[in-house]
Amino acid sequence: MRKKSVCDLARFGGPRLFTRPRSIAQLDAPPVEDYLAVLRESFDARYLSNGGPLVRRLEDRLRDYHQVRHCIAVANAALGLTMLIQLFARGRVGEVIMPAFSYRGLPHFAVWAGQTPRFCDADPVTHGLDPTAVEDCISNATTSILAVCNDNSPGLLNEICSVGERHGIPVIVDSVYGLGATYQGKMLGSIGHAEVYSTHATKLMNGFEGGYITTNDDALADLLRWQRNFALRGLHPASADGDNILGLNAKLNELHAALALLSLDRLGGVIERNKARHDAYRVALASIDGLDLLPHLNEAAERRSYAMAVVGVDAAWPLTRETTMKLLQAEGCLVGAYYSPPLHISWGASPHIQSLHLPVTERLAARYIKMPGGELTSLEDIAEIGTFLEFVRDNHTEISRRLEKAT
Amino acid sequence: MRKKSVCDLARFGGPRLFTRPRSIAQLDAPPVEDYLAVLRESFDARYLSNGGPLVRRLEDRLRDYHQVRHCIAVANAALGLTMLIQLFARGRVGEVIMPAFSYRGLPHFAVWAGQTPRFCDADPVTHGLDPTAVEDCISNATTSILAVCNDNSPGLLNEICSVGERHGIPVIVDSVYGLGATYQGKMLGSIGHAEVYSTHATKLMNGFEGGYITTNDDALADLLRWQRNFALRGLHPASADGDNILGLNAKLNELHAALALLSLDRLGGVIERNKARHDAYRVALASIDGLDLLPHLNEAAERRSYAMAVVGVDAAWPLTRETTMKLLQAEGCLVGAYYSPPLHISWGASPHIQSLHLPVTERLAARYIKMPGGELTSLEDIAEIGTFLEFVRDNHTEISRRLEKAT
Repeated sequence: MRKKSVCDLARFGGPRLFTRPRSIAQLDAPPVEDYLAVLRESFDARYLSNGGPLVRRLEDRLRDYHQVRHCIAVANAALGLTMLIQLFARGRVGEVIMPAFSYRGLPHFAVWAGQTPRFCDADPVTHGLDPTAVEDCISNATTSILAVCNDNSPGLLNEICSVGERHGIPVIVDSVYGLGATYQGKMLGSIGHAEVYSTHATKLMNGFEGGYITTNDDALADLLRWQRNFALRGLHPASADGDNILGLNAKLNELHAALALLSLDRLGGVIERNKARHDAYRVALASIDGLDLLPHLNEAAERRSYAMAVVGVDAAWPLTRETTMKLLQAEGCLVGAYYSPPLHISWGASPHIQSLHLPVTERLAARYIKMPGGELTSLEDIAEIGTFLEFVRDNHTEISRRLEKAT
Repeated sequence: MRKKSVCDLARFGGPRLFTRPRSIAQLDAPPVEDYLAVLRESFDARYLSNGGPLVRRLEDRLRDYHQVRHCIAVANAALGLTMLIQLFARGRVGEVIMPAFSYRGLPHFAVWAGQTPRFCDADPVTHGLDPTAVEDCISNATTSILAVCNDNSPGLLNEICSVGERHGIPVIVDSVYGLGATYQGKMLGSIGHAEVYSTHATKLMNGFEGGYITTNDDALADLLRWQRNFALRGLHPASADGDNILGLNAKLNELHAALALLSLDRLGGVIERNKARHDAYRVALASIDGLDLLPHLNEAAERRSYAMAVVGVDAAWPLTRETTMKLLQAEGCLVGAYYSPPLHISWGASPHIQSLHLPVTERLAARYIKMPGGELTSLEDIAEIGTFLEFVRDNHTEISRRLEKAT
């Protein structure tokens, strides 16, 4: 409901702007009848898992989409990253260089793979790894570099790969937010030694859960196919490494592949609607000083998927980011602090890490709000959010006074 | 096709007994319409993953079924075992005591959890861990004991738990083949510190893929629910351990829970049909010396699920196990050597392990064939297999002569 006075704010007991909360998840929904029809076929054939025809078709389609030699479907992107980190460590206990300004799960995956995370500062423009900082982090202990694509830019991937090559260290790219994007004019998928994508329902392509790895390395692709199925002999050609492959159950099954295939057909439309939502945020925030939509770099030359709407909070905005988020959350906007706290602070596993100071990361992590988006957020919703934020700006003194009294 | 002469054997170019191969997988298939109807509800509600209503309902139902305080659904049993081994290690790099006569994946899970497998000999009657041998394996390095239920018997679980208690070492039970079985008159589910089950399509209850953990330990259940969802804060009450929980993506989603719920309703019928197949094997092999169906222990007093038909090959049978398996495989019987080679031989990661001699395990691993079973193997198929094996016995001299010439 539109606000007329400060009492109308949900934070102070007024009715919420959105009764059904508006989330940040993409939630593409292919027609249920299409999905059930595909599923019925698998069901009748009793071929439900373990490299069935739909998984193989999905792998073929994605291989073409990314213009890469191999696509290996996995149960989820987290397992894909863990597998790659483990394989590249080649039995060594070492360090994985990764961004501190990134997703909370990353250091966990390194530890599962027997490695220690080595947090690295961000490049202030792309928000990805700073290649110079990466080079400074390299030591004899380094077993891999994990670069992460952000929604606004894939990052300085060529430069990071050059650092890796110079030191003989493999580069893994977490491209979960790179799906649909180009890098130097070419679809992502063949950067570094391998890239990892997600098909979780909250991501651009909806396969309920799931993920996949892309690579141009034939030998690596063989190892991954073997590893994802318990490293069982017989299903894949024997390798010289034999039993040294550490197996797990990371297979994708037909249920997920069926939906991902339908969602892949719809990717163009999803990205178009994301772009429209992005434009709507730009319009909604145009007249609000101190709140800026994070722009996508090289928009003219490159393709982007606009999966996220991220807003930066500057000094000209009269409230703190945290207060602003609480006001929005109370209204039913499921906003979040964008990569905050940063990993070198939240992980804090050792005194060494706790004393790290990563100035760019810390500045970025203090600044951004991830706004509602995806298929369940309409253009009208975004206009309402803009109006709401104007109301907050116009009444910030009164709001601050009330909040102070409340605490 | 029924064999009239040795030339009719598929091994020698004759037509196969079964055109469609008969597998060892259970493959229960609830009516597709029921499944699609449940799925449509989830789809319409756009609640597909992350602890949805069907996963919660499945957890409640299984908690009641196993008469245990907690059921935590996970993406697969392998991840469930890995999570438990990792949690019980409490950050230490140590050893997990596990059977050498068991499933190929087990040592892999220990290594993912930062531990080394310590292989232990089997009890000759139950084929599970020998409690005395377990006690001999315990050292300062031991972080957990992993007992595994077999189809013929859950094993000497009380005795193993007593050893664990005496030394303050947690006991995990891999109960994948214990579903549907009782132990000392009570449904399995609350033995040791936690049990792990599978809902893979090949197992007794079909949820496509998936698994779950049962435990009576409230604190452990909290940690597991937290761990399976990236150890993200906010979704679960903060614990003193905080960020020391190593997270991963091991969530079960609604697609799998929907089918597992339907299959759970059918468990009684599945077990009845398994029992009928088991009885048919007993009849089919009754007149064949040297081939014996592995009996289920305490059948009169305990419930069993009869998920497997395992046949022991003795000296009275005129061919080796390996030759017999090859003849059966050629006919379209997807038989396998039951837990062979044993893990201390196949794993062979270190000279220490390679020089291990586990006499009971080695004797068992040389003896058994896992026969076709599950919903796609009929009672008539089993009678045909019996007739085929009689034919092989009656013509073994000629078969051996031909095989010798062929090599």
